[in-house]
Amino acid sequence: MAIAIHDPTLRDGNHAIAHTLSLDDIAAYCRTVDDCGLDVVEVGHGNGLGASSLQLGMARHADHEMLETARANLTHTKLGIHAIPGFAKISDIKAAIDIGVDVFRIASHCTEGDLTQSYIEYARSQDKCVQGVLMMTHMAPAEVLLAQAQRQVSYGANAIVLMDSAGNYDPRDTSEKIGLLAAELEVPVGFHAHNNLGLAIANSVAAAEAGATILDGTMRGFGAGAGNTQLEVLCAVLERYGFEISTDVFALCEAVEALLELPPVQRRTIVGTSNLISGIYGVCAGFEKHVTRAAQDFGVAPRFIYEELSRCNAVAGQEDLIISTAARLSKSTPQPSTQPREGVTT
Amino acid sequence: MAIAIHDPTLRDGNHAIAHTLSLDDIAAYCRTVDDCGLDVVEVGHGNGLGASSLQLGMARHADHEMLETARANLTHTKLGIHAIPGFAKISDIKAAIDIGVDVFRIASHCTEGDLTQSYIEYARSQDKCVQGVLMMTHMAPAEVLLAQAQRQVSYGANAIVLMDSAGNYDPRDTSEKIGLLAAELEVPVGFHAHNNLGLAIANSVAAAEAGATILDGTMRGFGAGAGNTQLEVLCAVLERYGFEISTDVFALCEAVEALLELPPVQRRTIVGTSNLISGIYGVCAGFEKHVTRAAQDFGVAPRFIYEELSRCNAVAGQEDLIISTAARLSKSTPQPSTQPREGVTT
Repeated sequence: MAIAIHDPTLRDGNHAIAHTLSLDDIAAYCRTVDDCGLDVVEVGHGNGLGASSLQLGMARHADHEMLETARANLTHTKLGIHAIPGFAKISDIKAAIDIGVDVFRIASHCTEGDLTQSYIEYARSQDKCVQGVLMMTHMAPAEVLLAQAQRQVSYGANAIVLMDSAGNYDPRDTSEKIGLLAAELEVPVGFHAHNNLGLAIANSVAAAEAGATILDGTMRGFGAGAGNTQLEVLCAVLERYGFEISTDVFALCEAVEALLELPPVQRRTIVGTSNLISGIYGVCAGFEKHVTRAAQDFGVAPRFIYEELSRCNAVAGQEDLIISTAARLSKSTPQPSTQPREGVTT
Repeated sequence: MAIAIHDPTLRDGNHAIAHTLSLDDIAAYCRTVDDCGLDVVEVGHGNGLGASSLQLGMARHADHEMLETARANLTHTKLGIHAIPGFAKISDIKAAIDIGVDVFRIASHCTEGDLTQSYIEYARSQDKCVQGVLMMTHMAPAEVLLAQAQRQVSYGANAIVLMDSAGNYDPRDTSEKIGLLAAELEVPVGFHAHNNLGLAIANSVAAAEAGATILDGTMRGFGAGAGNTQLEVLCAVLERYGFEISTDVFALCEAVEALLELPPVQRRTIVGTSNLISGIYGVCAGFEKHVTRAAQDFGVAPRFIYEELSRCNAVAGQEDLIISTAARLSKSTPQPSTQPREGVTT
């Protein structure tokens, strides 16, 4: 089975450094990996097109600058974007098409696929390759994800990608969810992992074995929170399992060595304590900074805040819940729970 | 099923910093994790008792200083050592017994279990808990490992531990090898992983599911090469899979936060390029420095040296092969192979 490798180092990695990737970083990365056989390199603000803002963090450079730079430095590898309707406008999609973006990922929370309709339809009307993306997919059971994916396919999506945004999957979850979509959908299925539970590689292999044919990985795992699936390792392990990839493992290793000064390689991405705890509870990685601050302000251990946010099914955009949760917990005596609550993964 | 957690942070981690752990580091680590419910903390030079030497690297402190310091700072958690006969002498085992070490791991290359006989017999004669350890176990098939383990059991070993020293296992290997030993041996079986292929957590879960009841992990993955199984993550994932552990995940997370200045936390262990390549080819992590130097001296890419060392089944102690291999390769035109050779894992 052939697997296409999708590399969001220059998009998800932007989360890890507050969206400060420079145009030089982008140019050097694209130039260096272009000959490695990577299928797609994705570029932009961590939250995708149009997301640079005071609330989400200002990117150092405008979308069009980042995309034009990448475009000028890619020959073989396709250029991709991530777009979340609401942050991105249709006009952002149009601008990206004009710059020459090849692959359009249109993303929503896992239960809100209908928000992607007009964006998917627009990009497809322009004959672009469009992937429907469902984020935070540990929060919905497989059947719900299938129904959401079917909607995105009905809008015209050429593929569906499940994101384990909180790094909460284990290989059993991956097999079940990817397996159902791969069996029921007539378009390719992809998987995007985070490493909060140290299982990004194992989950990606499980996804491939369950029928996924698009897998995401970032150089050195550079990405939000505990980071993504480590690209070089992913490629080596996929080959070991007998999957065909067009990406050259040793060329990628040489690329790492050639990019020693760049943020993806400079920063050593690890599973930190708060990454692990947010992964256990399946809470959005973007909450880390806010939880740490609220924990200090209200004298409550971060784990109790994460646990309560998980119980409330809090998702990105509900950062105000963090403060009110911490305030409430500070007034009660939290009952320690050494186990994540039952069913947190579905 | 209950799993005992064995923590070699202060032994395998010593590899990562040229055996420079200080007595203050050891005291602080032991004091901090003692209440986390960890079953065993292992302490010493990276290569274990008696290994401090010009060839293997001089440790900052003598074995007895490290062990006495740990002993003085552990109350609940047992104290363990790693000993490789040849580096360690029987008199080192005796000295460790006198200091109050509880758990004795006597280790050999995976096909040389008989070298452990007199050491296992001596420690057992002193009524100590002894674990027979087989290292570099990716180099022998399951049946050979079983036969070697049976010898160690016949010498009196109370448990057998398989080490994936080169980080070359995937979960299929782990299931097969641990599964056979767990089915055939009447003593507990343990597993010690390295993360070269990003699979340390998945392999450890596979080991537990195959019947292992002793698992190794180090804080933040601090260890040789790509590091070990990350202890905090391991504990969280074992609980998620329903295994019983006496180690408290959140207490461990608090311990990480309390040890921010210590080498295990300061150093961010990652899967580097040479770790990945040595993992692909199943070559000893300790060769890294020598391969890097020989690659430079002879103008040969490290991957070709690793590939050739793998073909020769080179093991630790054969560092002279690295230079002769690099010299030979520099005179020929290496035929690139983008795939590890068949059967490298068995």
